[in-house]
Amino acid sequence: MRTRAAVALAAGKPLEIMEVELEGPKKGEVLIEIKATGVCHTDEFTRSGDDPEGLFPSILGHEGAGIVLEVGEGVTTLEPGDHVIPLYTPECRECHACLSGKTNLCTAIRGTQGQGLMPDGTTRFKMLDGTPIFHYMGCSTFANHTVMPEIALAKVRKDAPFESICYIGCGVTTGIGAVINTAGVEIGSTAAVFGLGGIGLNVIQGLRMAGADKIIGVDLNDDKEAMARKFGMTDFVNPSKLEGQTVTEAIVELTKTEKDAFGGVDYSFDATGNVKVMRDALECSHRGWGVSVIIGVAPAGAEISTRPFQLVTGRVWKGTAFGGAKGRTDVPKIVDWYMDGKVEIDEMITHKMPLEEINKAFDLMHSGESIRSVVVY
Amino acid sequence: MRTRAAVALAAGKPLEIMEVELEGPKKGEVLIEIKATGVCHTDEFTRSGDDPEGLFPSILGHEGAGIVLEVGEGVTTLEPGDHVIPLYTPECRECHACLSGKTNLCTAIRGTQGQGLMPDGTTRFKMLDGTPIFHYMGCSTFANHTVMPEIALAKVRKDAPFESICYIGCGVTTGIGAVINTAGVEIGSTAAVFGLGGIGLNVIQGLRMAGADKIIGVDLNDDKEAMARKFGMTDFVNPSKLEGQTVTEAIVELTKTEKDAFGGVDYSFDATGNVKVMRDALECSHRGWGVSVIIGVAPAGAEISTRPFQLVTGRVWKGTAFGGAKGRTDVPKIVDWYMDGKVEIDEMITHKMPLEEINKAFDLMHSGESIRSVVVY
Repeated sequence: MRTRAAVALAAGKPLEIMEVELEGPKKGEVLIEIKATGVCHTDEFTRSGDDPEGLFPSILGHEGAGIVLEVGEGVTTLEPGDHVIPLYTPECRECHACLSGKTNLCTAIRGTQGQGLMPDGTTRFKMLDGTPIFHYMGCSTFANHTVMPEIALAKVRKDAPFESICYIGCGVTTGIGAVINTAGVEIGSTAAVFGLGGIGLNVIQGLRMAGADKIIGVDLNDDKEAMARKFGMTDFVNPSKLEGQTVTEAIVELTKTEKDAFGGVDYSFDATGNVKVMRDALECSHRGWGVSVIIGVAPAGAEISTRPFQLVTGRVWKGTAFGGAKGRTDVPKIVDWYMDGKVEIDEMITHKMPLEEINKAFDLMHSGESIRSVVVY
Repeated sequence: MRTRAAVALAAGKPLEIMEVELEGPKKGEVLIEIKATGVCHTDEFTRSGDDPEGLFPSILGHEGAGIVLEVGEGVTTLEPGDHVIPLYTPECRECHACLSGKTNLCTAIRGTQGQGLMPDGTTRFKMLDGTPIFHYMGCSTFANHTVMPEIALAKVRKDAPFESICYIGCGVTTGIGAVINTAGVEIGSTAAVFGLGGIGLNVIQGLRMAGADKIIGVDLNDDKEAMARKFGMTDFVNPSKLEGQTVTEAIVELTKTEKDAFGGVDYSFDATGNVKVMRDALECSHRGWGVSVIIGVAPAGAEISTRPFQLVTGRVWKGTAFGGAKGRTDVPKIVDWYMDGKVEIDEMITHKMPLEEINKAFDLMHSGESIRSVVVY
């Protein structure tokens, strides 16, 4: 079949909207009509050429929602008409990683996914001249139709609006999951969130859901404060406005109490991708038990560092991918939470556009005007 | 009273055996007759002058065992005749840290302890000319008698031999505790231990107790292999003997199985204090769930580093002090384990000597001849 897609022809170029060929689903695969897709910083990381593993030409996009049109041989858990959210982290429930119960990083199709291919080692997309087009993060939601493995699709309820729940395919789950799955925040905790973009806001609402007492947001841009407060932030620190104090010192000061002369947050989260900020996040966490979670994706080759004393005195340094969420199991729950009003999404989707205007989404991201742009097919 | 002590008069000098003045226990304090003390790398770190926070003159030593001779006002949990192990990490059971239930890093007397003082801000030791002598790690077990706060003494059974159980005051508890308390190793795990000195051997016996399936030891010295195997090591890697393979690659190779094409250990431990090795330890741990624990004390100013991707893909970087053990609660249990034959100690105490020969213990440490030297009073 033919479908419309925004194709990344080469690193650093705007996406080109064009007709492409899409082969039907093979064994274990499913054809999806994508109804909406978010445009995420990770797409931009690859589009821009910053991603050393970026492949071109490819169809980017990994934060979508859609409807099953056709299932390939052997597919048993989905049928045409089902509503689904594509998962760039699949959940096969059979590999060593899935069966460990300790991680969401399913390894079933990791090799081929990283090469921009379906599990059989080929692509379903082609240019009209026959040139193969790489898949992206196993999803390629910047196409009106895509083919995905059954194990990389979360079946969700049919009454949930695509243009909202697509955001659960990445940003919402990453932020909330970092709090719930990776950090395991308890009621009454204190926390700091570095970077108040879309991920940071979702971390904040995750912290509010988890019952944190003090939620300190950190951003260089004062304009981020009002929105973050709406999602549950209780204190705001702009490091550029601090006089004679580091951001770590400011956070320690904010968390000292009569009973606790040390200060420091129980949990901290980096949602910036800046390795220097990741260090601040670790070091503002509490001596003895602070847990710091890296969410942001750092530039290629960048390294984090600290004195080992920070860890020997009880801080824990962790990271999270897709918020530690097991997609087929956890994503439908988050959709329920959204429908029940426990999770806010619509306030964060600041811009919607048709596929033809997808390049505008990247401009809005760069100018800082958008929290999330969503392409509605 | 007067007692005999090995005094560190200045950085880098041998200890000097001399008579010193010891004031009796004040409120909340206890006078102890030290019966035996281990000589640990941490003592050498300070003696040598490498410790930027080292104070002189001081009485070093923090790995002892002895008998209560006298208790100060208000002491309720100890009485003369009790056998005790001094704790450089106290357990007050009242401070914010103790009550958190999340850490062993009691903060009750941390400030004064770091300054070489008793909790009231003074020292109990003096030279015969009246010069105050600093306490060390709140213990100063290189004196035949010492004064310590009640909260820094673990009461232990009376039938346990001092010259064995003194090692529980630091090395044994640090190694075993890192496995049990900090890492939380489960039955069937795989693990790597970097550095097969005293701490490394205790990590290995901790892993054996915890039921680990594969215990990989790493050391540059082949002579360490035989002893480590006695304590439970199942595989040995000498990084200097590897051809065309990094130590991380060698460990990954050793842990790949039919079901797990990735490899990597579930838990890794650095017992070297070398920041480069700490990185190897992290990076040989398993994608998705590997936990790496830093035990070794790094040189002042040294920093650990890695790509954040290592954490984002599920590895956890932690550290441990005193093996995460709550001294008054956990140390008596480890003494029981020793008496029950669950924990081996005597094989690791390779040298015993009187106080007069304590400088020989440092020589044996440097030459690599000893695992642990114990001074018997």
